Amino acid sequence: MELTYIPYKELERIRKLDCNTIERTQLFATLARINTLYMIMQAGSGHIGSSFSAMDIVSWLYMNEMDLADDPDAHGDVYFSSKGHDAPGYYSVLLGLGRLEFCQIHELRRLNGLPGHPDVITPGIQTNTGSLGTGISKAKGMALAHRLQDKKARIFVLTGDGELQEGQFWESLPSAVHQGLNEITVIIDHNKIQSDTLLSLVNDLGNLEAKLSAFGWHVTRCDGHDLQAFSACLEECKAITDRPQIIIADTIKGRGVSFMEDISTLDLDNLYQFHSGAPSAEDYIRANDELFASASEQLQKLGAGSLESEQRSLLPRPVVEDPQRLIGAYSRALVEQAEKRPELAVLDGDLMLDCGLIPFREKFPERFIECGIAEQDMVSIAGGLALRGVLPVVHSFACFLSTRPNEHFYINATEKTKIIYVGSLAGLLPSGPGHSHQSVRDIAILSAVPGLTLIEPCSEAEVAMAFDYSVNVSQNSIYLRLVSIPYDIPFQLPADYQLEYGKGVVLTEGDDAVMFSYGPVMLTQAVKAAELLKDEHGLGLRVINLPWLNHVDADWLRSSVEGFKYIFTLDNHFVKGGQGEMLGCKLAEMDSTSSYHLHRFGISEIPECGLNDEVLQAHELRGIDLSNSMNSIIKD
Amino acid sequence: MELTYIPYKELERIRKLDCNTIERTQLFATLARINTLYMIMQAGSGHIGSSFSAMDIVSWLYMNEMDLADDPDAHGDVYFSSKGHDAPGYYSVLLGLGRLEFCQIHELRRLNGLPGHPDVITPGIQTNTGSLGTGISKAKGMALAHRLQDKKARIFVLTGDGELQEGQFWESLPSAVHQGLNEITVIIDHNKIQSDTLLSLVNDLGNLEAKLSAFGWHVTRCDGHDLQAFSACLEECKAITDRPQIIIADTIKGRGVSFMEDISTLDLDNLYQFHSGAPSAEDYIRANDELFASASEQLQKLGAGSLESEQRSLLPRPVVEDPQRLIGAYSRALVEQAEKRPELAVLDGDLMLDCGLIPFREKFPERFIECGIAEQDMVSIAGGLALRGVLPVVHSFACFLSTRPNEHFYINATEKTKIIYVGSLAGLLPSGPGHSHQSVRDIAILSAVPGLTLIEPCSEAEVAMAFDYSVNVSQNSIYLRLVSIPYDIPFQLPADYQLEYGKGVVLTEGDDAVMFSYGPVMLTQAVKAAELLKDEHGLGLRVINLPWLNHVDADWLRSSVEGFKYIFTLDNHFVKGGQGEMLGCKLAEMDSTSSYHLHRFGISEIPECGLNDEVLQAHELRGIDLSNSMNSIIKD
Repeated sequence: MELTYIPYKELERIRKLDCNTIERTQLFATLARINTLYMIMQAGSGHIGSSFSAMDIVSWLYMNEMDLADDPDAHGDVYFSSKGHDAPGYYSVLLGLGRLEFCQIHELRRLNGLPGHPDVITPGIQTNTGSLGTGISKAKGMALAHRLQDKKARIFVLTGDGELQEGQFWESLPSAVHQGLNEITVIIDHNKIQSDTLLSLVNDLGNLEAKLSAFGWHVTRCDGHDLQAFSACLEECKAITDRPQIIIADTIKGRGVSFMEDISTLDLDNLYQFHSGAPSAEDYIRANDELFASASEQLQKLGAGSLESEQRSLLPRPVVEDPQRLIGAYSRALVEQAEKRPELAVLDGDLMLDCGLIPFREKFPERFIECGIAEQDMVSIAGGLALRGVLPVVHSFACFLSTRPNEHFYINATEKTKIIYVGSLAGLLPSGPGHSHQSVRDIAILSAVPGLTLIEPCSEAEVAMAFDYSVNVSQNSIYLRLVSIPYDIPFQLPADYQLEYGKGVVLTEGDDAVMFSYGPVMLTQAVKAAELLKDEHGLGLRVINLPWLNHVDADWLRSSVEGFKYIFTLDNHFVKGGQGEMLGCKLAEMDSTSSYHLHRFGISEIPECGLNDEVLQAHELRGIDLSNSMNSIIKD
Repeated sequence: MELTYIPYKELERIRKLDCNTIERTQLFATLARINTLYMIMQAGSGHIGSSFSAMDIVSWLYMNEMDLADDPDAHGDVYFSSKGHDAPGYYSVLLGLGRLEFCQIHELRRLNGLPGHPDVITPGIQTNTGSLGTGISKAKGMALAHRLQDKKARIFVLTGDGELQEGQFWESLPSAVHQGLNEITVIIDHNKIQSDTLLSLVNDLGNLEAKLSAFGWHVTRCDGHDLQAFSACLEECKAITDRPQIIIADTIKGRGVSFMEDISTLDLDNLYQFHSGAPSAEDYIRANDELFASASEQLQKLGAGSLESEQRSLLPRPVVEDPQRLIGAYSRALVEQAEKRPELAVLDGDLMLDCGLIPFREKFPERFIECGIAEQDMVSIAGGLALRGVLPVVHSFACFLSTRPNEHFYINATEKTKIIYVGSLAGLLPSGPGHSHQSVRDIAILSAVPGLTLIEPCSEAEVAMAFDYSVNVSQNSIYLRLVSIPYDIPFQLPADYQLEYGKGVVLTEGDDAVMFSYGPVMLTQAVKAAELLKDEHGLGLRVINLPWLNHVDADWLRSSVEGFKYIFTLDNHFVKGGQGEMLGCKLAEMDSTSSYHLHRFGISEIPECGLNDEVLQAHELRGIDLSNSMNSIIKD
């Protein structure tokens, strides 16, 4: 399949067109949308809807408003997006302005390319975002630094509107007023749709202007696609000298493509389809045709000739043959247990679809509590429910669930109630979204919560067992760590396998070394490594699936390593604080009389962004990397 | 010294007085203030100011408003304080109503007594608070549970006003409206003073009524000491059937004692003196006399006889001879480094006094950034500052700093800037405030932040070295973990001691076993244990101070344990995820050919509240406990 993008020279031509500023900017934004669509399609994932809703705003700021230094990293006015997931749109503006190497257009979500969420490693990116609600705080830090350094620069922060459900947004407002930080202008990309559906259905924002004004900010509002009106708001803000300003820009999610703009059918059953992920081939063609038609019409109106474009083939995507889908299995297990346990209630943080909660919500709407993007609130609500005899099952992505409400896990633990937490999108993969979304620190930060058992299942079958254990067997609270990507696994659990607290199960037999791991991604690498060690080096590796992340049965461990000189652990997590550290320390406590060699594999650097396989390779965690490393260690 | 309290029979008599409800409640509240003062004086610490500002409100709710079940744990209307530190006042109301065993009046902040902050272990306490901003979320959880269970109960939540700086307060507001939770009534104890000084100086709340109304809550306001007005507000709230309500109760911190009410001299240099901690003997007597005079006058007015009271001696407080004061040493080190490093700026989360920041603020006011009770905002501001070349030094209590902004540490880490974080009040002691304030999980949850080095110094001298290292030597970001209580230490660092990354220093020599620990509290226990082992059991213990919490030099460790069969670690932290786990795993990786026995000491249960020595004993961490345990292990 061929994909189309607008080359740099064409964007440069448009930027220099001798015409009305607004028309020029609008045309540029249309072309940037074409390139954004290309980038997301080529990457296989990315956020179209909010890239498009913010495109006119970002284009205007960069083309007409900001005082930019030539060197993208040098001093000048500052812009960044707090929501961060509109990165593809943002990159396409920077690419069109020549502020990024244009060849990077082909490298969205690729290793050493343009990260899925903004990272300061990319020239011109001012701060790392992707975790919601942090932008204004960051801007305040920059403004205070500029003041200490006698520098002058305006700071523009774009936020989402779903993002306004995060407490930190509101936490960050007062001191900006208290300190009179008038150099900060916030623009809310108010497209009214959050990850799943309409904000008004999830957790309504109410009277936004009244709220923001009450916090003491100067507030103004416009149609975020009407550049005349937007520029007037910017002028108004520039004249305010005593306090920060907010522009509420009413926008349309998916702006520029009719079927992405259409929200007439949205409700809790019909979710918005273009928040994240690449479109289908058919949708890509329709969207691209619409954008091209629109650009051509604008060019024609300006008498500016026809539109030059280039084509590139869609990179082949890896084929997943018969994958294990852990979220699907979880979704079924949740409904099954809920049927038997009327006290079970589900809490969601605006990730109903991604966490597999739709079947539950359809079946038990009265027991489904949508909390919006408000993780601290959600985990405290769970605490309140549990104190009254409800069994709350709390959902978000692992990267957010384990961190934002970290203290709240502990508070709940001190009340000794039982709560089940389910963190999806766990581990290094998918690696396209980048480190804000790669949860590789959650074992470390939850292991020491008293009375909390951490489990990561490796297959659909083990998901069902783990959730059954969580609901019906465990007295402890549970953190269930779920890999979200469908994954081909080259192993099977034994037919008679049962979960036993602190004990694992052998997946491959071998006499030369033993490796402990968990979850579909790393057990797959371990089993592949076992095959390679056998075939290429004549070494036998016993691979053990140990789904218990913060507890191991000492007797079982002793018998599992007995006779082995080489012991390996493999974490889908930082080596520091992972399962391997727990196992290593337990080995040290075991009074072993025989000597052994322990080596821990896992992540030791900030996770890379890229295709799943290239990132596994970059961290030397593919089967072949592990096989080579283990062979070297054994043969040394 | 004799302390005075009002016995139960007298409180019961007042509750049954045949007089006007308001006068009866006011009198009860005055007596409850006397008992609160007694409890705090006897405990040696506790929060007077906000106990007194909320006393009329709490008394009214319990005596006249709430539908209470006889069994304090049974179903009925719910009240709890979200701020939690007003617990002594709250307890004194429950004691006066016979809802707590009256003998508990002598047991504030004692083992198995009344915890420093509310805990559900105490009859009638509905939820654990002490970490700010969580109350409304908890109330929502309870309300949703009641609805699922077809129960009817009103839920009253008291919040502080400084607490409104926490994002979670605002995060929790919208869904209560979205879900129409009219059974929730929030009362803001609006005394205008937070931990250190006036809110208006720290981070002004602005137009509070406008803010809360804009969030869609029903808002009403009254003088929180005018019970007629307060009761009218409650009536108004009761009539609202479609949404939750907030009463802004204007109160006076320290209400009832003239010199505790006096805020005429408060500013950033003159802080409020009665937020936490016991008063001086002189202040106690003055305050008690005033409250007695007031009670007697009220009684006389009602023709209700004279006031019966009882006395009890002030328990002797442990004498600290010549303690190490780490916060003081830090305070000096901070100013010293700041003089040399103009790019160093200080951020504070409303704990200027407790974190030792006043000398810095006085000397470098332009480099002092007061963030208020807003830890996520503060750590993100630090991130913004660091991106612009400032060296931010960020302060709060370890329990809050390591948890609330946990994700924000990681975001900053991914930007690879350098930031120094200083968490005071670290570890098990002081144990009076209870588990919300005992930071015993911070090593586990920060160890895996990439590029972050964790250090805990054990003495004033080591504090200066550690901060010098943090500012001038380390390329990494630093988390400096500080014990706040003055502590007598029975050891000295060698005169030529220098900090070396990942290496420690021997404090006592011995041939039979080696113990690794850190910080003044646990090294003291270790050295005492060494003395006892020698004197009573003839065993020699090498005690090593290893201030590096998440890194150890492998060669140094190898040589430190060489020849030892018994290796012990001692954490001022949960055993899980502490320094001992890091050391244990490193030992396992060392290919030791000799066998050894490893045992880790530390905290394994939720920390107890109580006097420091009784809590050390409860966790079996005193020198004598350790000595006995080690002797058993060695002799086994």
